[in-house]
Amino acid sequence: MSEKLQVAVAGIGRMGMRHARHFATLTPRAELIAVCSPVQAELDAAKKEFTTVRTYLSFDDMLAKEKTLQAVVVASATTIHAEQAIKAIEKGYHVLCEKPLSTSPEISQTVVDAYRSSIKTYPKQKVICGFSRRFDASYRDAYNRMAKGDIGTPSVFRSQTCDKLDPSGFFVAYAEFSGGIFVDCSIHDIDLALWFFGEDSKVKSVTAVGITAVQPDLRKHNDRDNAVGIIEFYNGKIAQLYCSRMMAAGQMDCTEITGTNGQIAVNTQPQSNLVNLFEPTGVRREIPPDYYGRFREAFVTEANEFTAACLDNLPPPMSLEGAVKAVRIGAALQESLISGKKIEFDESGKRVESARL
Amino acid sequence: MSEKLQVAVAGIGRMGMRHARHFATLTPRAELIAVCSPVQAELDAAKKEFTTVRTYLSFDDMLAKEKTLQAVVVASATTIHAEQAIKAIEKGYHVLCEKPLSTSPEISQTVVDAYRSSIKTYPKQKVICGFSRRFDASYRDAYNRMAKGDIGTPSVFRSQTCDKLDPSGFFVAYAEFSGGIFVDCSIHDIDLALWFFGEDSKVKSVTAVGITAVQPDLRKHNDRDNAVGIIEFYNGKIAQLYCSRMMAAGQMDCTEITGTNGQIAVNTQPQSNLVNLFEPTGVRREIPPDYYGRFREAFVTEANEFTAACLDNLPPPMSLEGAVKAVRIGAALQESLISGKKIEFDESGKRVESARL
Amino acid sequence: MSEKLQVAVAGIGRMGMRHARHFATLTPRAELIAVCSPVQAELDAAKKEFTTVRTYLSFDDMLAKEKTLQAVVVASATTIHAEQAIKAIEKGYHVLCEKPLSTSPEISQTVVDAYRSSIKTYPKQKVICGFSRRFDASYRDAYNRMAKGDIGTPSVFRSQTCDKLDPSGFFVAYAEFSGGIFVDCSIHDIDLALWFFGEDSKVKSVTAVGITAVQPDLRKHNDRDNAVGIIEFYNGKIAQLYCSRMMAAGQMDCTEITGTNGQIAVNTQPQSNLVNLFEPTGVRREIPPDYYGRFREAFVTEANEFTAACLDNLPPPMSLEGAVKAVRIGAALQESLISGKKIEFDESGKRVESARL
Amino acid sequence: MSEKLQVAVAGIGRMGMRHARHFATLTPRAELIAVCSPVQAELDAAKKEFTTVRTYLSFDDMLAKEKTLQAVVVASATTIHAEQAIKAIEKGYHVLCEKPLSTSPEISQTVVDAYRSSIKTYPKQKVICGFSRRFDASYRDAYNRMAKGDIGTPSVFRSQTCDKLDPSGFFVAYAEFSGGIFVDCSIHDIDLALWFFGEDSKVKSVTAVGITAVQPDLRKHNDRDNAVGIIEFYNGKIAQLYCSRMMAAGQMDCTEITGTNGQIAVNTQPQSNLVNLFEPTGVRREIPPDYYGRFREAFVTEANEFTAACLDNLPPPMSLEGAVKAVRIGAALQESLISGKKIEFDESGKRVESARL
Repeated sequence: MSEKLQVAVAGIGRMGMRHARHFATLTPRAELIAVCSPVQAELDAAKKEFTTVRTYLSFDDMLAKEKTLQAVVVASATTIHAEQAIKAIEKGYHVLCEKPLSTSPEISQTVVDAYRSSIKTYPKQKVICGFSRRFDASYRDAYNRMAKGDIGTPSVFRSQTCDKLDPSGFFVAYAEFSGGIFVDCSIHDIDLALWFFGEDSKVKSVTAVGITAVQPDLRKHNDRDNAVGIIEFYNGKIAQLYCSRMMAAGQMDCTEITGTNGQIAVNTQPQSNLVNLFEPTGVRREIPPDYYGRFREAFVTEANEFTAACLDNLPPPMSLEGAVKAVRIGAALQESLISGKKIEFDESGKRVESARL
Repeated sequence: MSEKLQVAVAGIGRMGMRHARHFATLTPRAELIAVCSPVQAELDAAKKEFTTVRTYLSFDDMLAKEKTLQAVVVASATTIHAEQAIKAIEKGYHVLCEKPLSTSPEISQTVVDAYRSSIKTYPKQKVICGFSRRFDASYRDAYNRMAKGDIGTPSVFRSQTCDKLDPSGFFVAYAEFSGGIFVDCSIHDIDLALWFFGEDSKVKSVTAVGITAVQPDLRKHNDRDNAVGIIEFYNGKIAQLYCSRMMAAGQMDCTEITGTNGQIAVNTQPQSNLVNLFEPTGVRREIPPDYYGRFREAFVTEANEFTAACLDNLPPPMSLEGAVKAVRIGAALQESLISGKKIEFDESGKRVESARL
Repeated sequence: MSEKLQVAVAGIGRMGMRHARHFATLTPRAELIAVCSPVQAELDAAKKEFTTVRTYLSFDDMLAKEKTLQAVVVASATTIHAEQAIKAIEKGYHVLCEKPLSTSPEISQTVVDAYRSSIKTYPKQKVICGFSRRFDASYRDAYNRMAKGDIGTPSVFRSQTCDKLDPSGFFVAYAEFSGGIFVDCSIHDIDLALWFFGEDSKVKSVTAVGITAVQPDLRKHNDRDNAVGIIEFYNGKIAQLYCSRMMAAGQMDCTEITGTNGQIAVNTQPQSNLVNLFEPTGVRREIPPDYYGRFREAFVTEANEFTAACLDNLPPPMSLEGAVKAVRIGAALQESLISGKKIEFDESGKRVESARL
Repeated sequence: MSEKLQVAVAGIGRMGMRHARHFATLTPRAELIAVCSPVQAELDAAKKEFTTVRTYLSFDDMLAKEKTLQAVVVASATTIHAEQAIKAIEKGYHVLCEKPLSTSPEISQTVVDAYRSSIKTYPKQKVICGFSRRFDASYRDAYNRMAKGDIGTPSVFRSQTCDKLDPSGFFVAYAEFSGGIFVDCSIHDIDLALWFFGEDSKVKSVTAVGITAVQPDLRKHNDRDNAVGIIEFYNGKIAQLYCSRMMAAGQMDCTEITGTNGQIAVNTQPQSNLVNLFEPTGVRREIPPDYYGRFREAFVTEANEFTAACLDNLPPPMSLEGAVKAVRIGAALQESLISGKKIEFDESGKRVESARL
């Protein structure tokens, strides 16, 4: 057996190619051995870049034929994340699944169930859903300071995932399968809220409101281009969210955690690098054009830490249950966004139906 | 008749003394001639600082005896704002009333009614409720840029009024009469939202959630120490609010207006001055300790512009109706905060009762 | 006698009008009673703005006729600063003289001599040369922190006065009488160095180098548009200067004081106000267009403190000797800039001639 | 022959171990095969971290025995940089030599001479002296903007290399062999000035002044702990330098390039990451503790680009002659620092002796 983790990537569109690169060239302890995609052109591109990699049109084929395979990165379309993840889990592979597991909380749960069952057979198996911000150096610094008690009791959380405006209209089509802006974008902020407040935090209520300021066609798919939401927790904590696909300047993801004795802010002054330009119109700095521009290093860290967890049988860097919980909250916010209703839960997590009828 | 506006200040506690100073020494076209307060010690302090000023224990007395009086600044306790404002209005004086007119929307409306009636007799009479941020140079710069179309259509508004923690517990007692954190603090943010989105913006719904992270006793007065809220408008715009009395570092008031083609941020990097300190623990800057530290210059501008409006018969720098609308929205948010219910309005401004029963 | 300081302003060009405004409307304890200028149009403009002021074409006339005059602000052309200041001093008036006293150290000294002599007759007389930065809130904060020992022993000083490019070529003509860029611009930084390091600091050497990047014609007047210089002090301290007339973005004046245990930076991130603009090209903020945009509040403070010093017989807020010392150092830097020679001084302040001949 | 560049590292102290790591784990196209050091403990540590690496107590031995070796990284003590580099060059290896080639300009030149001679035999040989800032993303962004003409003609350069205070006194001992603060620290800034102004820029004069604010013992080795310098170029450009070993907050390396139509600033607001802390004392951010904390990514890029240049026979990313020129200027500044004399050069680069004798 090789000393390097033998990795395959399923789905090599934009995000899949990035994962492939991270494992092939930026994760010293991993080796990229195979990729699959239903699109031949994507396989050709991968072959050109990673000359030794084997390519497959079929996911099942790849699993069947790659005898040394140890770990699968699922970076295919969101709609088949769960299916592929479960197949790989059941064969005992380590799995790094792109977020979200599914846009449906129920389907997401089936992935967790498959893992809970499989791990009895493969006790060293690692399955994670990659929330890249958990690997970001600034978020980790923030978390560690909070965990040390530097801000007292964390109480109010504000976070936003705001993408640069893509005037091509791409995301209207994308909205059909994305699960909606809260499941697609805010899922990261929700995961951060669970991380910072504790994954056992119980949701008391969610409310959301949104608009279509630039893409009215999003309404066809029950989506919005700007939305704000509130999550109320039973432990006396609240989270305030903003998601948007309309930013002019670039990717605007920031987070503030306010405690009883201080506040930690992450990226409230976004920037691409350490350059400032002094021009006749004033002082200017650029900001990252997209999510990857902001979090590339975090993805690389994710690949390295996932690899280490697999090779050294370390605890996975995050729990799979948390990923399901985030989808559940995101889906509830999306429902509130569309219905206009506040949604309430009891302490057992069960939805409280209004006593109306 | 004097060329300088003859001004009296009613109520000379902390805020009243500041107004007195602004008119007495920083408003060249005004002259402070009288102050009143039911507290003799306050009158003594005022007399000591403004040696030529006349002092009164009774507001009515002051109005009766000051024959040259032209304008009254109402800076007394919030509970008597409306009463004193109306008395002064009915006598034909110009009035600058500290915010809020009242914590009750209904009582606030009586001030507007009094003005609407009085102005028929005194057509040059000016009455404003001082929302100091409207006079702040940075907010005005932001507004003018937005009004020029620099950010496209303004769509999402985020604003916060977050006070430095006062560990003395003062604000528990204060909460009894403050109208609650949304009426006392967020009223400024609500006024800004109306200013930036247009005072004719119609509210579709409000929701709010809050906690008592540092002062559980606030619950006695139906108040919270941290709260977040959402205002949904009929014109496809939304506002996201945060108010807090728990900031460690100082006064943290900031605002972002996001449009279809850009965003304007005001004070998202708060600071006391232009000094940065490089110390063994890193780089540090201080921030203003309180609201007045942040907005002192705006209060002085307010005094000067109010004076100019009175002397030169200019339109008042802001409408009194807007001040009532802000209280109405603030009170609805406060109600939502306590009841946990989302509150909806139809386009005529009438509350929509849920059709449940 | 009036309770307000009776002030006249000599020279009411751009800077003189500003001083006139500060004393007329922003200094409650002062009253502007007269102005003089050899230019009738300037007098007309002043009369229009300050309707009660008396105007004179002759400085001497003004002094002769204004019987209640107490203080004179000298804001005329630099070449007659010293002459007017001395005349006013000899008549016993308080004097606030714009910087520099003169571009010549020798002539500057005559102003000090006049004051030293006159004060024997008028022991309450106040004479200052207005270095506006000494009245700036940020510089004062920096100074106070340093004085408290917050950065250990201050050792290295870096400061710059960099003006926005004026493409009109105005400053070529101006250079004929300005004394050169080190006397005109860096004089402020030199004064700050003396303030922060102590006015008794003894100069060991000065060196300067410069270029004409945008205005080669400046060489006609022995001047440059960009220059850097070093001042070495006998007390183990050094100052690094940069002056420029070529900034694209606006006025760029900043200062750093590095001590053995920390550093204080003033305005190293220049800004006009608290607004940030998020645009398709990135994040932008504007910066003040000129010196006055940066230091207006400091000038107002200067007017108020000078007035208070005169009325209450307080020590003047800065020493006149320091102003001469700054000119002396500025002139030496300017000489080094042109000659290309390092200039050295012995501890008594006497110039060390190289032993070359 | 392997597809991966076969690399050995000579000298595996602190910096050598970092280079070893960069080539072993962060440069996908390179393989670390051997290291040497006269210190057995260092070899043991390397062996422990890089289990497959071969270790040598002797540099000559390593070259003799490593038959597949292609490239040598010289990271030994500065005093033997040149000797080892020349030995490796003469055997035809690619060489990445840590800066400086030598503290002596003459010895530095012998490395260039060896390379010029050797390349006739080995036309694909690459030899560079690693100035890490040239590989830094922010500096490259700045350079590219300048090269596009974004700031007009670059004219004034300001740069500083300021280390965090090391109270252990380590650098007093270190100063004996470092060549002095201008050769050790400012060498980077000098290299940047040559990069930004053009490597063919001719020096007209240098001047420097310094102090020992925290380590008077540095004077034993003709060194200082804080120094400022000016470089005047014949092409109408000037550079202003500051080097220090006394920073409280961390590594403070920043650069400004001012052109006739704008300015580019790199890292004038230093920071460790994107976190800001709001505490009772204000807002705080931390900054990198040392040079490596600021430039780690640049070192990794350096390793990757050097590897690519060797494998693909690309032009080296920087010229070796420039490295010698930087030492020459640094040594002249250091001489000026100690002698107190301004040093002048004619356009041919020859020193102009003062006409004194």
